[in-house]
Amino acid sequence: MIPLNPQRALDEMKALRALTSDENGNQRVVFTPVWKKAVDFFIAKLDEIHVPHRTDVAGNLWATLEGERPEALVIGGHLDSVPNGGWLDGCWNVIAGLEVLRAYKLSGQKPPVTLKVVSWCDEEGARFGRSLFGSSAFSGHLDPEVVGKLKDKDGITVAEAAKAYGIDVTKAIDAKKEQKGIAAYLELHIEQGPVLEGLGLPLGAVLGTVGCERNLIKFHGQAAHSGSTPMNVRKDAFLAAAKMAQEIYTIAAKHQGVCTIGSCVTKPGIVTSVVEDCTITLDQRHLDARELAAMWKEAQEAARRFAQEGNVEVAFEDLWRIEPILFHPELTAFCDQSIVETVGKSHKLPSGPLHDAAEVCRAGIPTQMLFVQSLRGISHNKIEDTKDEHLLASVTALAKLTDKTIAWVVKKLG
Amino acid sequence: MIPLNPQRALDEMKALRALTSDENGNQRVVFTPVWKKAVDFFIAKLDEIHVPHRTDVAGNLWATLEGERPEALVIGGHLDSVPNGGWLDGCWNVIAGLEVLRAYKLSGQKPPVTLKVVSWCDEEGARFGRSLFGSSAFSGHLDPEVVGKLKDKDGITVAEAAKAYGIDVTKAIDAKKEQKGIAAYLELHIEQGPVLEGLGLPLGAVLGTVGCERNLIKFHGQAAHSGSTPMNVRKDAFLAAAKMAQEIYTIAAKHQGVCTIGSCVTKPGIVTSVVEDCTITLDQRHLDARELAAMWKEAQEAARRFAQEGNVEVAFEDLWRIEPILFHPELTAFCDQSIVETVGKSHKLPSGPLHDAAEVCRAGIPTQMLFVQSLRGISHNKIEDTKDEHLLASVTALAKLTDKTIAWVVKKLG
Repeated sequence: MIPLNPQRALDEMKALRALTSDENGNQRVVFTPVWKKAVDFFIAKLDEIHVPHRTDVAGNLWATLEGERPEALVIGGHLDSVPNGGWLDGCWNVIAGLEVLRAYKLSGQKPPVTLKVVSWCDEEGARFGRSLFGSSAFSGHLDPEVVGKLKDKDGITVAEAAKAYGIDVTKAIDAKKEQKGIAAYLELHIEQGPVLEGLGLPLGAVLGTVGCERNLIKFHGQAAHSGSTPMNVRKDAFLAAAKMAQEIYTIAAKHQGVCTIGSCVTKPGIVTSVVEDCTITLDQRHLDARELAAMWKEAQEAARRFAQEGNVEVAFEDLWRIEPILFHPELTAFCDQSIVETVGKSHKLPSGPLHDAAEVCRAGIPTQMLFVQSLRGISHNKIEDTKDEHLLASVTALAKLTDKTIAWVVKKLG
Repeated sequence: MIPLNPQRALDEMKALRALTSDENGNQRVVFTPVWKKAVDFFIAKLDEIHVPHRTDVAGNLWATLEGERPEALVIGGHLDSVPNGGWLDGCWNVIAGLEVLRAYKLSGQKPPVTLKVVSWCDEEGARFGRSLFGSSAFSGHLDPEVVGKLKDKDGITVAEAAKAYGIDVTKAIDAKKEQKGIAAYLELHIEQGPVLEGLGLPLGAVLGTVGCERNLIKFHGQAAHSGSTPMNVRKDAFLAAAKMAQEIYTIAAKHQGVCTIGSCVTKPGIVTSVVEDCTITLDQRHLDARELAAMWKEAQEAARRFAQEGNVEVAFEDLWRIEPILFHPELTAFCDQSIVETVGKSHKLPSGPLHDAAEVCRAGIPTQMLFVQSLRGISHNKIEDTKDEHLLASVTALAKLTDKTIAWVVKKLG
């Protein structure tokens, strides 16, 4: 049995929080001195156990424990946070991964395959508005032309900020070569949602990251005086848009996905006029691409129906979309099993937010994520938290998943 | 028979339009040179027929044709317009009233009672945000302290602007003494709504001006990530608010009133978050005070129900309210009869917008309004229009109504 010590990881996590937070939360924003403190903290821990490390051309930091074979299993996370962020988001993945790697190292025996821990560069995208910088460079989905020009709120470009930390953005896409020899990828993360807490479960096996359809729905009616216009001749854009609010709950329930109207803007938007223009945003997510497409189709059909009922016009405008990314079914089963062995009961669930794991998965590498419960489902906020006992259990489950995955890799390699 | 000449009035109206409009519409904004042109045009027409006139302390311009008795019937309107306004709104009342007065004058016989035409000062309130300035001074509902300080968009106060035209706002409330001897009040106005056009009728008898309940309804839920928050745990403020959109149509239909949600504001209002705060405006109008109160009560009950269904909170905030003002039933009957005699068919309807007639009515003076059809129901816009034949008929109907009302006043005086 490996000498795993989850309490040691938790103590390190709390020390890192003390080092990188202030009264407003955690401040490990990429390419800043506080973020560098977190990177240096991780490096010092690696140096303590004499595990070599290096930073690739995209700023991803790799720790490598050589195994009996060159093929590698990677555990990943990210040390950067949003401004005023939570203490665990991304960071706990790295520290827990460090503990698993350390346990293998301290066991004194080479693991059957090489074991790596990676801290991806700029997962959050909070500073420049483009998330998954390092992992998308790795997967081959980064456009350095576009990304290099992005600016933070002070007008500093990604290229300038990265350069100050020794990274040349124009070369970042060469991080794709890091894929070589990677046989599987694992990532532990806080759930950032309320599902596991609602079920009273500490841990969950992630099925994949959901696909997202993000669109504007624009209803166009006719402004008319609120006092002199009879109800039956109105062309009320708000009435048509408002009908969508209930409809999306019906659509979400039918397909077991999620739908959100996050914004509603009315014009002229004055108390004495019927609404002429009403634009709503619609964000739809599902783990199954066909279900997601059906959800968007049904939303459009409903919008057209409501427009016709109210004698108004409707138009649609794309905002953004990404396909669902499904993790590896065998690894999902290992994850589920590891959770049962650790805490007695597991639950399989999709991830609403995107993660670095999605980029790795898109590169064709067998990938799996493990979720640990978030209190109140809150993240990206200083009150983000998880019970100590759940954090400790998550390290144990990650170690078990690592063992099972290494065995699976070895078996596959033959 | 009086030598009424509706075509003459229409010609004058078109001349006045040419004098006071530009490519953006009519510009007779109160206390401006263009408005003064309109006032001078009216005065010149009175001088032509040797009818005396004077301006009262509130800037209302009175033309007086002495009758066999000092008690007076008044026909009113207003020469001011909104910026980029229509050619007929308010002005046609004055010009049509002038034609009726002129017919009496040219007949060579004193009318049985005194006949006055008044052009009320600043009906629109478009410049300073307070409508019915002159008529509310007349009715005793003007607060000169408050009104004198109101500013236009250039920072000029009502007091300063009025002073330039010889009016001392602090003395405006003395216009109340003009009520003396007034036995009845009539006002012709364009409908500014689509009802008569919808019915294919040129003219309508106005029952009164509707009462108005204007409120904010504020729903408070909880912001939550659009990707990670299951539908069944959401506290979606937009969902609750949106249910009001259909509900107000049900309430309006039940009570035969009108209800309008003119504005919907969502916060945080971003595509990736469930709406935490959603505030809508609700404008409700009815000619019957009890029905209006019931409409607002039912809207509040519905809002509370929708809030409870969605596990969100709701609060209400007053914006403005005014009671319904009913015109004189006997005069309404005369109006209806005059319309039937003129064009064959009449329709009784409430007025959604307020008018000077409402202030006169609140002063306890028997009051009646006559509506002439508006094309497309559009007003306060350069495309505001009414068919010539309907304008001509409206002068005839106003003259008939004047005759009947004079006879009624004489009979009442005994």
